[in-house]
Amino acid sequence: MSKEPLYLFDTTLRDGAQTAGIEFSLEDKISIARLLEELGVDYIEGGYPGANPVDTEFFEQKRTKTAKFTAFGMTKRAGRSAANDPGVQALLNSAAEAVCFVAKTWDNQVKVALEITLDENLGNLRDTVAAAVASGKEALVDCEHFFDGFKANPDYALSCVKTALDAGARWVVLCDTNGGTMPSEVTLIVNSVLAIAPGSHLGIHAHDDTGQAVANTLAAVEAGVRQIQGTLNGIGERCGNANLVTLIPTLVLKPYYAERFETGIDAAHLERITQISRAFDDRLNRAPLRQAPYVGRSAFATKAGIHASALLKDFSSYEHVPPESVGNERSIMVSQQAGKSNLLTALARHGIKLSKDDPQLERLLATVKDRESRGYSYDGADASFAVLAHEVLGTLPEYFLVENYRASVERRHNAQGEEVTVTEAVVKIRVAGELLMSVAEGNGPINALDLALRKDLGKYSSRIEDLELVDFKVRILDGGTGAVTRVLVESRDGTGERWYTIGVSPNIIDASFEALYESITYKLLKTETAQGTN
Amino acid sequence: MSKEPLYLFDTTLRDGAQTAGIEFSLEDKISIARLLEELGVDYIEGGYPGANPVDTEFFEQKRTKTAKFTAFGMTKRAGRSAANDPGVQALLNSAAEAVCFVAKTWDNQVKVALEITLDENLGNLRDTVAAAVASGKEALVDCEHFFDGFKANPDYALSCVKTALDAGARWVVLCDTNGGTMPSEVTLIVNSVLAIAPGSHLGIHAHDDTGQAVANTLAAVEAGVRQIQGTLNGIGERCGNANLVTLIPTLVLKPYYAERFETGIDAAHLERITQISRAFDDRLNRAPLRQAPYVGRSAFATKAGIHASALLKDFSSYEHVPPESVGNERSIMVSQQAGKSNLLTALARHGIKLSKDDPQLERLLATVKDRESRGYSYDGADASFAVLAHEVLGTLPEYFLVENYRASVERRHNAQGEEVTVTEAVVKIRVAGELLMSVAEGNGPINALDLALRKDLGKYSSRIEDLELVDFKVRILDGGTGAVTRVLVESRDGTGERWYTIGVSPNIIDASFEALYESITYKLLKTETAQGTN
Repeated sequence: MSKEPLYLFDTTLRDGAQTAGIEFSLEDKISIARLLEELGVDYIEGGYPGANPVDTEFFEQKRTKTAKFTAFGMTKRAGRSAANDPGVQALLNSAAEAVCFVAKTWDNQVKVALEITLDENLGNLRDTVAAAVASGKEALVDCEHFFDGFKANPDYALSCVKTALDAGARWVVLCDTNGGTMPSEVTLIVNSVLAIAPGSHLGIHAHDDTGQAVANTLAAVEAGVRQIQGTLNGIGERCGNANLVTLIPTLVLKPYYAERFETGIDAAHLERITQISRAFDDRLNRAPLRQAPYVGRSAFATKAGIHASALLKDFSSYEHVPPESVGNERSIMVSQQAGKSNLLTALARHGIKLSKDDPQLERLLATVKDRESRGYSYDGADASFAVLAHEVLGTLPEYFLVENYRASVERRHNAQGEEVTVTEAVVKIRVAGELLMSVAEGNGPINALDLALRKDLGKYSSRIEDLELVDFKVRILDGGTGAVTRVLVESRDGTGERWYTIGVSPNIIDASFEALYESITYKLLKTETAQGTN
Repeated sequence: MSKEPLYLFDTTLRDGAQTAGIEFSLEDKISIARLLEELGVDYIEGGYPGANPVDTEFFEQKRTKTAKFTAFGMTKRAGRSAANDPGVQALLNSAAEAVCFVAKTWDNQVKVALEITLDENLGNLRDTVAAAVASGKEALVDCEHFFDGFKANPDYALSCVKTALDAGARWVVLCDTNGGTMPSEVTLIVNSVLAIAPGSHLGIHAHDDTGQAVANTLAAVEAGVRQIQGTLNGIGERCGNANLVTLIPTLVLKPYYAERFETGIDAAHLERITQISRAFDDRLNRAPLRQAPYVGRSAFATKAGIHASALLKDFSSYEHVPPESVGNERSIMVSQQAGKSNLLTALARHGIKLSKDDPQLERLLATVKDRESRGYSYDGADASFAVLAHEVLGTLPEYFLVENYRASVERRHNAQGEEVTVTEAVVKIRVAGELLMSVAEGNGPINALDLALRKDLGKYSSRIEDLELVDFKVRILDGGTGAVTRVLVESRDGTGERWYTIGVSPNIIDASFEALYESITYKLLKTETAQGTN
């Protein structure tokens, strides 16, 4: 039996932008679209051209290579033609290949919110879709409040679906806008829609207000719907949208679905999904949810107890899928075996060769575990890992010693009575016995420390000339009074290589300084190797 | 038609204790059991007496008033009688009214993990249940790996269910131990179990590894199962257990379930659920999940855009249940796309009334938009919005003026040659003409500034006594050299209210100071109102 195609439609950049606390910049949108293409979705809905400057600019050019670049907007207003509706024209003149129009399908909403007749609403829908198709765009229709609308007036809800398809829409998407529908209701209602429309033209758009967005989506797919709308990590208004990062592995790995459906996601895409999910949270500066299905740090973690010993006998009984299939890792406190081989791989990446039985390996593993328990995370800070490894193995040259440093920020009024902030840092280091003291001003204490630290490294100065600080991220771990700050610094040099270092401390300045210090040490280490081979 | 009873079984204190990073003390267990009784569950599973000192002490006395106090443990070992098994005896001699025994029901697991025969396993189960019943306890059996076991060997899995019931177990609980079962599979398999056992004696225990613990639980209930196991906020091993805080409102509020089933939860219990969920997170020192169904801070939040104006016309179309039914609140957020009507709603929330045509409204809107374009984001910082509104409208009392401040961090070696970091802040403010200068040390510059700023507010000091800094978040916007730092501060006071303030600056210290300053100003504003009405 040949498999039926399922289409994945991502709305992170549109419906996801409704998430409380999230405001995407143009750079965010461009970078997230890249992540989504890496993930392998079929449609990327990028926003609402014409509605705000960021979205308008985002749609000035095509931003995707393989996924269909999709704009979102409203159908035309009553009383004017699609050609005379500036909203519709902004969509049709954008660089989008597809346009998703939202239409009301709940009779009462048409009357109360739009204040037009039911027929006018159908006419707006028909004319808008026809105009989009005539302009060469693929047309999709999001049926807002479809499930509530169907319960209130099934005939009218169905006539919206039919009108959209007759006018040439490629997809009609059934939206559970307020997120209150149960999976069994989805099954029943989708079955009614299938009586008048083919599943190959129907989509599902679910929200998580009862914690069932994923289940509602799968219920619709089982009933016959063939397009899935969702977002990265389930972001979205209120409780969020259906989480594509959860749905995709289920569709690809569970025989129940994999035997019947095919998506554009292959095994290589899937192995990247944990990293993509975390990179997205990084972009939003959110801590990844540990409990997240498939990709969470705890998703394959087992605490000691009755499971652990059984787990050692047979992983598969306590893991519903293999963690490596989604690029995640098993973590069991009692087994260090997995840890050792990971560590050997990481060391080899930095040109350090140890045998599996080397007692130094055990010591390094213990150090890494201890530091990770205190908030370090070497996953994203490979350069800090290299520095730590050389330190534990006793192969780190003593480049320079920091005797002391000081950073101060002062806000006061200047002679003209204007408020000014003066930030200054002083760093005292010892290089080959010589004491060097530098001072610098910056636009913040970390900037000032960075400038002062790199100002004079004595005989090493020439080796860090092309070192550049690219980015700087701060995360507060475990909130509240016992909080620890984790700082991640991204650096780059003339060779184009980028590296990441980490610092952890209750004091944000100490944590930042540690990450800056390790970045310089890493840069010296890598030029060491280059010089050593001369 | 009379409604069928559904029983709620909480396992927060047992399976929830398997959560990575969670370790309950005796005080935690006592306090959480109290929360669970407030919630109205039927069973509270408190742990594993005999397995560790905390659980043993917890079970030395009955810790519940209305819920059945339940212990958890293993069935007797092969080769000895229940009377001679110290594990079983610890359970039977505890203060528990009910005992839940875990039994393996997957044939392969019995052979590989327990290394006994399938018949020995049935014998252990039978004898253990019989011994519990004979000692006057209610007996429950958790069928570990039931769904995987059923797929591998349905006859054996079913014989475990039958053996337990025949031996006198009140409940047999079908556990999806590794969390990989789909709702449709749950429906099919539960239907097979119902052929040999009544639903009134069956329970469901689901895990969230595919994001469907809630849906799997409801699928089992729809099929005929009448006991639900879950945890507060869905804590638990790996991705967690079925979330009772999500399931309970669905069962009570959704006509689909409420018309067929009755639970021990009444409207008054339900109105407490948001507070119970948050109190539980407080106890664990975790930030409540904003997106959590029903109880999250965002669960009834709407950002501007197409919804907001419709929402004002008809709340019910965008809210699947009334927020007050679960003790939560509606919130309409201000953001870049904010229209005037959103702004009016946000103002009204802070007791500020303006007419739609007031020119001040236009000015406030422009200010909000300007600030958001510079990196502020008011949808997550409602207290800063209130302060800004009062400022723009000219109704902000001049509580205190900051003349200047200074924060410094110094790392050096102390007299013993140890590295120490000393962090100090000095703040000079003017209150009612009087100049006040305070100094404080902290574990970081922001902590030190916070302490110095709140040390002496002159005549306002007593009004901020119960103000507490709860959390602090930093985000670097647009990375690199032109970076701007956004700081979000969460505060709380003795009334239990939490509020959020924001600061934006290229300098992280300035941004933090701004957020701290606004938190205090907000606290003064809110006590102003309280005093004003006296």
